[in-house]
Amino acid sequence: MPAAVLFDVFGTLVDWRGSVAAALKDIGAQAGIEADWFGLTDAWRGRYRPAMDAVRRGERPFAILDELHRTAILDLLPAYGAQALAPNADELVDIWHRLNPWPDSAAGLRQLNRTHITAPLSNGNVALLVDLARHADLTFDTIFGADISGHYKPDPETYLTACRLLNQPPHNVMLAAAHNDDLAAARALGLQTAFISRPHEYGPRDHRADPAADWDIVCTSVIELAGLVGR
Amino acid sequence: MPAAVLFDVFGTLVDWRGSVAAALKDIGAQAGIEADWFGLTDAWRGRYRPAMDAVRRGERPFAILDELHRTAILDLLPAYGAQALAPNADELVDIWHRLNPWPDSAAGLRQLNRTHITAPLSNGNVALLVDLARHADLTFDTIFGADISGHYKPDPETYLTACRLLNQPPHNVMLAAAHNDDLAAARALGLQTAFISRPHEYGPRDHRADPAADWDIVCTSVIELAGLVGR
Repeated sequence: MPAAVLFDVFGTLVDWRGSVAAALKDIGAQAGIEADWFGLTDAWRGRYRPAMDAVRRGERPFAILDELHRTAILDLLPAYGAQALAPNADELVDIWHRLNPWPDSAAGLRQLNRTHITAPLSNGNVALLVDLARHADLTFDTIFGADISGHYKPDPETYLTACRLLNQPPHNVMLAAAHNDDLAAARALGLQTAFISRPHEYGPRDHRADPAADWDIVCTSVIELAGLVGR
Repeated sequence: MPAAVLFDVFGTLVDWRGSVAAALKDIGAQAGIEADWFGLTDAWRGRYRPAMDAVRRGERPFAILDELHRTAILDLLPAYGAQALAPNADELVDIWHRLNPWPDSAAGLRQLNRTHITAPLSNGNVALLVDLARHADLTFDTIFGADISGHYKPDPETYLTACRLLNQPPHNVMLAAAHNDDLAAARALGLQTAFISRPHEYGPRDHRADPAADWDIVCTSVIELAGLVGR
């Protein structure tokens, strides 16, 4: 039984795709713009990994996710006929601070908090995650954002900084995530692993919602995880 | 009105002296030892600033407060006739993870959380503060321990790292503390300041419970602070 359970956030605890598309549609409507908001959402998220990888390879200095989001959306707006939203850049970046949770996330965390220390371990920055936790009623003991270690997952520094700050060896800490690559990086460092399948993260169900290894726990909700992790 | 309120912890939110002395007495009783537990508590706390100052001056590498506490108590036990407790070092260090709050701290934080982001900004390490927040029912949005910046207050890095991680300029952040020197360091960097008088921190009331400057807020409880800070 781990002392602490760390959570990936985007996709694992919150529905980034549905939330971002709905918020874009609202902001667009106020400006009288119609566009393929799901397409823009997917394109925006598509810039996520390459932007972080450029940081991870040292091609650009560390910048918080808010800044990566800003650069990406300003670059994408013209191709989606939404260039008129460029002056709303602050509001657009802030969308990622107000994502809605999956239906089980808040209740599951509340249950898990009774027995375990919990924290997000996310590529979001601390300020984003603080806002998100308040918006989505996600109760954590503390927040581990990428700007604490100055690294992005799957860099080992992210997982190991969290373990160090919790004063726990990696084998006493569990990562819960909907993403196999995140769990593989954590397992390589000795952390325990829990796969939470989120079949609707990318819209239509796809193969990424299936576990790709024999993770310590495989489940479909945080509530289920809370019941399994203490056994 | 600040976006976030940071809290000093030892003395400001929790009664370290009464809690530590009571815990030492309990552990001593189990070992059949009687001693001047308040004296040992004061001596233990007395090693706090010199040990941190040695880190701050670069005379020793950064070590978390748990380690500084361990070194100090093992050094002090013999002079208090409590050498027999040396094998209980883990348990002794853990006392500081289980301090009791002042009567207003939990309710005041809960009230303040409705309108403001809150976090401890403490010389305690993150793991200590997580345990302490759970024990004392102190609800924070996140935890800023000294091991996040690798510095001890009043080093500027501690205050500025918290502001950076909250993505706020210092003038949007308030430090609440029972200690004038902590507030002076924060004010020098541009933070807002709130003095919470804690006349019983050191036992008999003494002059340290009086404000030494025109702090932005001067009050006697977190509940009072929560009422004043939003105005």
